[in-house]
Parts: sequence; structure tokens; C-alpha cells
Amino acid sequence: MAQVEVTFQPDGKRTRVEEGSTLLEAVKLAGVDLTTICGGKGKCCKCKVVIEEQKGNVSPLSDIEKKLLTDDLISAGYRLACFTAVYGPVTVRIPDESRTGKQRLQVEGIDTPVILDPAVSKCFLKMPAPTMDDITSDVDRVLGALEAQHGLKNLKFTYSVLPTLPILLRESNWEVTAAVWNNERIITIEKGRTLDRNFGYAVDIGTTKLAGYLLDLNTGKVVAAESLMNPQIPFGEDVITRISHAGKGLKEQNELQQVIVASLNKILERLLDKTDVKPEEVYEMVAVGNTAMHHLFLNLCPTYMGLAPYPPVVKNGINVEAKDIGMKINPNGNVLALPVIAGFVGADSVSDVLATEIYKKDELTLTIDVGTNTEIIMGNKKWMVGCSCASGPAFEGAHISNGMRAATGAIEKVKIDPVTLDVTYKTIDNAKACGICGSAIVDIPAELLKAGAIGVSGMFNKALNTPRLRHGGDMWEFVIAWKDETASGKDIVVTQKDLGEIQLAKAAIYAGVAALLEEAKITNADIKKVLIAGAFGFYIDPASARTIGMYPEIPISKVSVVGNSAGTGARMALVSREARQTCEQISRDVKYIELAKNPRFQSVYMNAYFLPNAELSKWPETCELLKMLGRYPELPPPIM
Amino acid sequence: MAQVEVTFQPDGKRTRVEEGSTLLEAVKLAGVDLTTICGGKGKCCKCKVVIEEQKGNVSPLSDIEKKLLTDDLISAGYRLACFTAVYGPVTVRIPDESRTGKQRLQVEGIDTPVILDPAVSKCFLKMPAPTMDDITSDVDRVLGALEAQHGLKNLKFTYSVLPTLPILLRESNWEVTAAVWNNERIITIEKGRTLDRNFGYAVDIGTTKLAGYLLDLNTGKVVAAESLMNPQIPFGEDVITRISHAGKGLKEQNELQQVIVASLNKILERLLDKTDVKPEEVYEMVAVGNTAMHHLFLNLCPTYMGLAPYPPVVKNGINVEAKDIGMKINPNGNVLALPVIAGFVGADSVSDVLATEIYKKDELTLTIDVGTNTEIIMGNKKWMVGCSCASGPAFEGAHISNGMRAATGAIEKVKIDPVTLDVTYKTIDNAKACGICGSAIVDIPAELLKAGAIGVSGMFNKALNTPRLRHGGDMWEFVIAWKDETASGKDIVVTQKDLGEIQLAKAAIYAGVAALLEEAKITNADIKKVLIAGAFGFYIDPASARTIGMYPEIPISKVSVVGNSAGTGARMALVSREARQTCEQISRDVKYIELAKNPRFQSVYMNAYFLPNAELSKWPETCELLKMLGRYPELPPPIM
Repeated sequence: MAQVEVTFQPDGKRTRVEEGSTLLEAVKLAGVDLTTICGGKGKCCKCKVVIEEQKGNVSPLSDIEKKLLTDDLISAGYRLACFTAVYGPVTVRIPDESRTGKQRLQVEGIDTPVILDPAVSKCFLKMPAPTMDDITSDVDRVLGALEAQHGLKNLKFTYSVLPTLPILLRESNWEVTAAVWNNERIITIEKGRTLDRNFGYAVDIGTTKLAGYLLDLNTGKVVAAESLMNPQIPFGEDVITRISHAGKGLKEQNELQQVIVASLNKILERLLDKTDVKPEEVYEMVAVGNTAMHHLFLNLCPTYMGLAPYPPVVKNGINVEAKDIGMKINPNGNVLALPVIAGFVGADSVSDVLATEIYKKDELTLTIDVGTNTEIIMGNKKWMVGCSCASGPAFEGAHISNGMRAATGAIEKVKIDPVTLDVTYKTIDNAKACGICGSAIVDIPAELLKAGAIGVSGMFNKALNTPRLRHGGDMWEFVIAWKDETASGKDIVVTQKDLGEIQLAKAAIYAGVAALLEEAKITNADIKKVLIAGAFGFYIDPASARTIGMYPEIPISKVSVVGNSAGTGARMALVSREARQTCEQISRDVKYIELAKNPRFQSVYMNAYFLPNAELSKWPETCELLKMLGRYPELPPPIM
Repeated sequence: MAQVEVTFQPDGKRTRVEEGSTLLEAVKLAGVDLTTICGGKGKCCKCKVVIEEQKGNVSPLSDIEKKLLTDDLISAGYRLACFTAVYGPVTVRIPDESRTGKQRLQVEGIDTPVILDPAVSKCFLKMPAPTMDDITSDVDRVLGALEAQHGLKNLKFTYSVLPTLPILLRESNWEVTAAVWNNERIITIEKGRTLDRNFGYAVDIGTTKLAGYLLDLNTGKVVAAESLMNPQIPFGEDVITRISHAGKGLKEQNELQQVIVASLNKILERLLDKTDVKPEEVYEMVAVGNTAMHHLFLNLCPTYMGLAPYPPVVKNGINVEAKDIGMKINPNGNVLALPVIAGFVGADSVSDVLATEIYKKDELTLTIDVGTNTEIIMGNKKWMVGCSCASGPAFEGAHISNGMRAATGAIEKVKIDPVTLDVTYKTIDNAKACGICGSAIVDIPAELLKAGAIGVSGMFNKALNTPRLRHGGDMWEFVIAWKDETASGKDIVVTQKDLGEIQLAKAAIYAGVAALLEEAKITNADIKKVLIAGAFGFYIDPASARTIGMYPEIPISKVSVVGNSAGTGARMALVSREARQTCEQISRDVKYIELAKNPRFQSVYMNAYFLPNAELSKWPETCELLKMLGRYPELPPPIM
């Protein structure tokens, strides 16, 4: 029977199913996260999906769907996955409300202490009412009280506070609380004493994932954290495609901005739902992201930052009123996008440096923030260099046959017995395996290499005598989980193509690191500390990453994982004005290294495609380990 | 046959016509300005009016109207005045497009010289394109050029300039012009060299009339002027009624703001139509008006400035971005509302003081800005006091039987022969007389008094033997123009009630002046100069105004008319930053006198109802003149 391709957004996953299969079957095959309680009986109405493209290729709306879905949902293209059969290629979007919600947030990062000094201060004011002998204007009365009672001078009112100010002052009997931004601007005036309500929102806008944190600005503590997929994925998985989409015209540029703002608002809404905080009590937001995400969030034309010589539109931190970009914190609240370093080294790198404190360390430190775009910063308190590389979304589970997000049932750790080739793994929440997420995607090639199931080129060793290695029809594959262990009832495998994707991703990262070493004229031995950051959180195994050659062979004792350090930096800047100043300094101090200018980049990249690298001499410990396990890496001569 | 009342808006005029009359007949009777070319034949479609209230009291839509009016107009309530019969009381609005357009603008005022130094400066910038060795951000490149080429430091970009900045810079080959506000904020960046395009908009928001001026900020000259009726009139003719309407709730407050902004935008549109200026080339607007108009324009709750102790919401000059209040100059342009003095002494008074330069004069000067609200400021460079009084719209032609706006056909000068009682008059454009406008409304009681047709109480001398004095059915009246001289074919008269309205208006003004004299403990002799300002322009006869006792009896040689000096001050502030500083100083320096606090106010007001005043001893010259003419004013003893 004919097979048809189903593409899931915003995950970006694809699967092939037999013509006439339901979308729910496709969802299971693809390992996409979709809630279903009744198991396809058309009762729970949980498996709502939206047909985005080629809507004619699915079965017509069934009577049960007509009954269960509201007219609004139907006209918005909603269907129930269990009642929708596919007859041709379709693109289906999984709306957030249909997710299981058990996704690991991947918002965890180190906590770097900072002195609490948020830009938003709240000031309680008690004023006398006007009399015939004191006809001071309402505005001057408030400003006078701010100066007399709080020493704040030359403040400016945000215009939109003024229209109803007179009523508010009188209804509150001249006892109000002002929220003041940066000792400059009055964001709002509230009735009575509301000093204990002062919140901020920090976000890390990743190419694939968004992380959001609600902070109490009175304590500096996180009160809730949430994450979502970046809704721009359907416009392109990597930054280049999105830059090119936005470059088509202002309409497209606006569109990319609006979807990202809508998702950041949705995260905020969830954070507010979890707590008793009201949107108008969130007075400031700090955003970080790579330069493309930064520009698209601020609706700045990203075309030229994507073309040599890659000048960003704005480099310094920029403050915008929330209402000007549609963020639904207090409309007069401030949105600070932290400074960027260059067209491809963004506010997330600045934030990484702030959080990891490289800028004040004596020892030379290498920070790698792994993501769809990987940012690399190297240096210490004397100097810093940085670059970024398009590593692709493989480590976020995309482009991998059984890859998935870090949700319930995702295989997150893999060990392969070097003798028996038996696989042991751990899933998130110890649920039945659904697919493979980022940390295991790093483990698998390392384990396969150590077990001799693949060679340094990444090709399967077809001479191997194990049922796990087999030809899957299209290509060779290795079974990680047998069908009786999986949620879908199908084997979870890693294919030759998957391995290639992983090798390309880690090669890009390594080549970036190598370029920085070359620029700084230093060797592996000079690096005293390696910090691995990224949405992986703390789950990546630094040893596996080293075995596959993602970074130079540095003693494992010097390597740590720091989680989402970009998010950590955003939170630090949210609660500390000094941290913001530091960010501006970091943005000036990090020297941007343009990889395209490095004549050796291409050959370094090619060598790094091998496991761990074609230049084996630089991986003595790894070679030693492989030899101990009976593997004798043999290679073509490295490209020089 | 029964008579029905027709009320015309925004003029606020009322007339009674026989049931079954057409609206065109009512228009003619009321002396309202309405275009009609075909003379009621249903051909020209010029006499379009809108039925605002009691729509059921007019004849149904005729076939000719259905043919001539578009569906949009019909659904908006438009009718042709010549084809609409009235069968009950109705309120009819004359839309601006149906006006003859020959209305005298009443925007004329003195020209007080000022050193040209507008807040908006335009700076041409030539920048190098980015290279691999110079990846400065686009924003920093522009800011750097502004500093290096124009010495402007620490400027801030308006956010909305940024989204498309990169494209603009490249399309203009890195040669652009920046419009910078107050050496602080970049309003916009334009392609190429546009230094010669720099315009500003000054407005005087009167309770009854709006005056607008388009200025070339490179020369400081007015390039066009326009005026319109204040569209808030239907919400109340005086400021108290409008304050009370706005006080009903935010919806009503917004509504009053939106109509005034719409009319100011309409004036702007006409100014732009007359010239080749584009809205985006108008970078700043300066607005003046009394405190109620100021608050309603800025959408500031006016309730409490209207209640004792009358504190304004804001006293200092306030700068708002045009888009925040809906003004359709450049959306990032600045709108400056000049400072006010108190709840009832507004930015128009500040502007009067600026324009008349009282604040730097040695001689004691009295400025009276006559309008629906009359602002009075007295003082010199050492001290100033000010007050305002609700004089009502009589001098703007409202509440006077044959009163009208200063348009073609309005009687603007009246002389009455003291012997024959013959009337000679002059009309605007020497057209057939349609009604009586402000300057003649001041002349008539003065001339009637001198001719002995009325006594000091303002009552007609019924013993007079002239066909001009007659009982008109309802009350006594005096014919100013016979029907064969008038456009409507009906006599133009002034009635006993009209005289009462004029007396009340001038009494309010005099009582305000008297209160200031008392506050300052000075007498008439101390006043060295009287300046009469207002929408009258230069047309009022100071001698007539003195004869009726609008101001104290001061030698006529010391009295001048200065026209719309509030508009003059607005224009000065638009082209000079120093003038703005002066306004802030004036706002602080003028001492506000609250008339309600003066225990003698009521008796002074009652005495001032007489012509010239019940305290005749204070009017020796006027008494002398009247005696010379054979009149022997006799009075009840003045109230003390």
C-alpha cells in the first residue's frame, strides 16, 4: 500500500504512514508529544490537532468531531487526530493545549549570585489632599512626594498613567504606590500600599526552545518557570531560513515577531496562572537570544546581520515599552533586550558570559552553549573571543528518526555493553520509551564507538553479529529499544543517517572551538575549564560529548555542565542593574571571530566529522580508551 | 400654525419656524452658514446637513435625496436641507463641507519677534558602509555620525524607527537626514538630504473656535492658517458642561478627546492640502487652550480641576508622542501642551503673556482675552495676577437672535446716528447682511446707549419715535438691517434678551478685571496699557468695548487690540525653545486669583450689568460723552 508523509509542527518531525492511517497513528510513529486519554475512541477530545497544509489530503470532518469540536475550533482547522485519516502528504500542527504537559522544562541553569538591585522600585506615597492654599497639580504632588519621601528626582510620568490619575489619587485617599523604572520613569501608580508586589519576567529565546522565568523582584527568586517550542520553527528550523523569510518584506518580518511575542505571552500566561501574580504586576522583562532571535523579537530587519560583514541593527542593550512590542506584562513596563556582540554572537552569549563569570576568572575558560545555533566563548578576565556555529537541531531531537523533545518517555541516557552490545537506557519519568532526546543523542554515538558498532567514520560495522544491527529497508540501523519496551510498539532505532546528522552537528561545534583556539594562538592544554551550556540542562554526559569530539580533549575533571546559562544571565540582569552594566561591558569586550574568514575552517570541519576526529593524535586519551576496549581506530590521513 | 424649534450644531444657534418649513428656511432664519447654489431646487447637493436628534420630527427621505446622496451618507443621517421639512423640534448639524468656506479665519494675531531656535533640528548624515573591519551596528553608526558631524551626544532612537532602519540606510546609500527632537530623541530618519523640509503645527484650542497654523521651522514663518468650530460644542457650550460630561466616565472623557483631536487633524489636513507639506514632515505640534481644553485635548480627567480648589492634573508643559494621543503629524513627532497656571487660567493665558510680553514690561499692563471663557492677566515684569471668567459665547455670536460667526455677510461694524437713529453698518466681504458677528455685538449696545435708544440698565427707551424700535411679538427689538438689505429677506434685529446676554457677558469680564485690581490694590490710573485679545482678531472697537464697560475707563490711547495672542504665543513656542522656558517661568510667576474667594465679586458683577456700570462715578469720560449727546444717565444707587 502507498505511504504518505506527515510533517508535525512546531516539532519539525516527519514520518511516513500507510495511506488511510489516522493522524494518531502517525503521531505515535513519529514520537510526537500529543495527549490522548480515551485511546482513540472519540471520547476525550484531547488529541486536537490543526491541519496546516494540504488540507484536502485528510478525511472529511466526522460526525463525532462535529459534535465534540466547537464551531470556532472547526473553522480554525482543528481536527481530532484519532478520527482523521490521511490520504496524501499533510502538515499538522500540535497545539500547545494538546501536549501532555509533562515535558521537561529544560529551564534549569546554574544560580550565580548577584546583589539584588532591580531596575523597578516601588515607592509608597502618602500625600495631603489639595486645599485652597495648596493647589499643586496632581502630577507635581506625586513627583514632590517621590522626591521628599524617596529622594527620587526628575522622574517622568509615562503618558498613559495620566488620564485617570486624578480619580485614582482621590479614590485611594492620597495613599498610593508608584512603580518607578530605573529612577527615571513612572510605570504606574497603584492604589494603596503594594510594595510586596513587584515581579519581573526573564526569557531565553532559543532557536528551537523558549524558556521563561517569573521572578519576585523583592527577593530575586524564581517563582515559576515554563518553556515552549519556538513558534517560528514552521518558518525555518535554522536562523538562516528565518532571516531569509523575514527578509521577504515587512509583512513577514512582522509575522515572525508576532508569533514569538504570542508564545512569550503564552509562557507568561502560564506562569501567572501558576501563581497569584497579575500581568500588571510584572513591570519588567529581560530577553536574551542569539542575534537573529533578538532582532526578530524586537522586529528589527535581520537581513543585513545575516549578510557579510554581519552588522547587527543594534548592539547595546535596548529598552522598549512593553506595549510597543505587544508584550503583555504591564503595558508601560520595560522590556530590556540585552546587548549582542555581533551578527552571529548574540545576547545569549553575553548572558552566558555573565552567568559563568568568565569575564572575571583568572583561568582560561571555554563555554559552549549547545543549541540549534551553538555559541562559543573563550577567555578570562584579560580577553575574550567568541563565535557561533549553525550546529542544527539534532541535539534538540529534530532530524533524528526517533528523536523527540525531552518529555515523558524520552530515552535520556544510553549505555551499550562493549562486549554483549546489550543496551541499557533510562527514560524520563521511567515511562515506556517513546523516542530519544538530546542527552541520549550524544551518548549513542559515543557508546556505539566504544562498543565497536561504528568506526571512526561513523559507519556501522556490518560484520557485527547482533540482532540490534540490521538493514531497516532504507539503510542500516541499530536498535536502541525493542518494540515490546516502547509506547508505540515499534522498535526505537538510530540509523546511519541519524549518525551522520549528529556527526555534522558536533563537527560544527568543534570547528568553532578550534577556530577560537587558533585565533587566540593557544592549545588544548591552556584551557583550564570547559563549561557546557544549553537546553540540555544538566543532563548531557560531558564524557560522551568528549568521546564524540564535540570539544577538544581536555581532562574530564575540568569539564562541567551549567545548564541553561543564557536563562541564568537573563535572570541576573533582571534583578541587578550592575549585571546590566556588566553585560554592556561584555558586549564590548568579547572579540567576535568570523569563522568564514578562517581559511582552515573547512578542513577542520571535515576532520571533525570523524569520531572523535580525523586528527586522532589530538585525542590520545580517547584513543587509549578505545584501544583498551579492543578498538583500533584507523583513518584516512587527516585533511590539513 | 404651530412653530417648532430647530437647533443648529456646532454653532449652537436656535430658531423657530412654522411646522412644515424646510430646514433651508430655518437655516436662513437662524443666519447659519450653509452653502446652497441651486437655491433649493434639489440640484446642487450642497446643502447637506445631518439630523442629530429627534430624527422622527422631519419628513421622510425624498426620492431626489435618495438619488443625490450616497448610501454611506444616508446611513450617516445626511439630508438635503432644502428637501427636509420639520414637524417638531430637531437638532441639526451643519458639517464643515457644507459651509461656504468664506468664514473669516480669526487666526490673526500680533507677531512678536522671537529668536528662531525650534526644538526639532534636521541633520544630514553621510556614513561609510559596514566592512569586515568595521562591523559597527546600524544604530551606533547613525549615533556616531550625529555626534561626529553634528556634535549631538546621548541621543535616543524612537523605537518605531528601528524595524526598517537597516533597509532605509542601504537604500539611501548611507546618506540620510535625521530629525532630532530637543537634542534628545531621534524622531525619524529620512532618505537623502531633506534639510529644507521641517514643519511644525501650532494650535489654539478655544472653547468655541480652533485655530491652527502650519509653520516652516527653518524660517519661523506661517505657511498657512485655518480654523474650525470646536466640535465639543454639542457636548456643552461652556467648559463647565463639558467638564461635567467628561466626568461621567472614561468613555465620555475619551470621546471628548477624540472629537477635538479629529478636528485638529482636519485643520492640519486642510493646511497640508493648501501646501505641499506631508504629514510626516510635521515633526512637532504646540497646543494652547484654557485648562479645561488643555485637559480634554490630553485626555486628562478634568473633574477635579473643575471643583474647588481647582488643581490641574498637570501644570508644567507636557511633551507627548503624537501617536499616543492620535495626532496625525509624524507619529513619532512631539506634541507640547504649554503649561497652565491653574484650573481656570490655562495655557492660553500663558501664551497671551508670552505674546504680549507683559512679563518683561515696565508699565503695568492689563490683557483681556475675550472668548467663551475670558482670561485676564494683569501685571508687569515685577508681578502678575490672573483670573478667568465664564463670559459665555455671546461675543462669538451664540445666544444672540441674529448672531453668527464672522463669515461672509456678517455685520461686523455698526454706527447709529445719535439724532436720526439711522443705522449704518459694514458686512464682511460687503455681501448682503446675514447676521451679526462679535465686533458688531460689542458696537450695538454702545451705539444704542449713545443714541439714547437704551438706558444704563440696557432697557429700550420705548418712548423713542423710530420704526426701528418695535415690539417683535415676544419682546422689544431694534432693527439693525431692514429685510430688503438682508440675505434672508427678513429684518436683522437685536432684542431686549440679546442685550441682556451681552450685558451679562461684559459684566463677567469687568468683574474679573475689578477683582484683579482689588487683589493688586491698585486703581484704574495705575494701568498703563490695556490689550484686548481674542478670536475677534483686530476687529473689535476698543471704544465701544469701553463704552459698554467691558473694562475700566482707561484713556483710549492706552488701549490696543492684539488679536489671537494665544495663537501667537503658541507659534512663538513652536519656533523657540527659549520661549518654552519663558512659558514655564510665566506659569510659575502668574498668581492665580480665585474669583469665588472675593466677597465683593457678586456685587461688582451686578453693578457691571449696567451700561457702562452702576458705579457711574468711575466712568467720568463716558458720562461726559453721554451728556454731550444729551443723555443723562440715571441709576439706582450702586450695590456696595
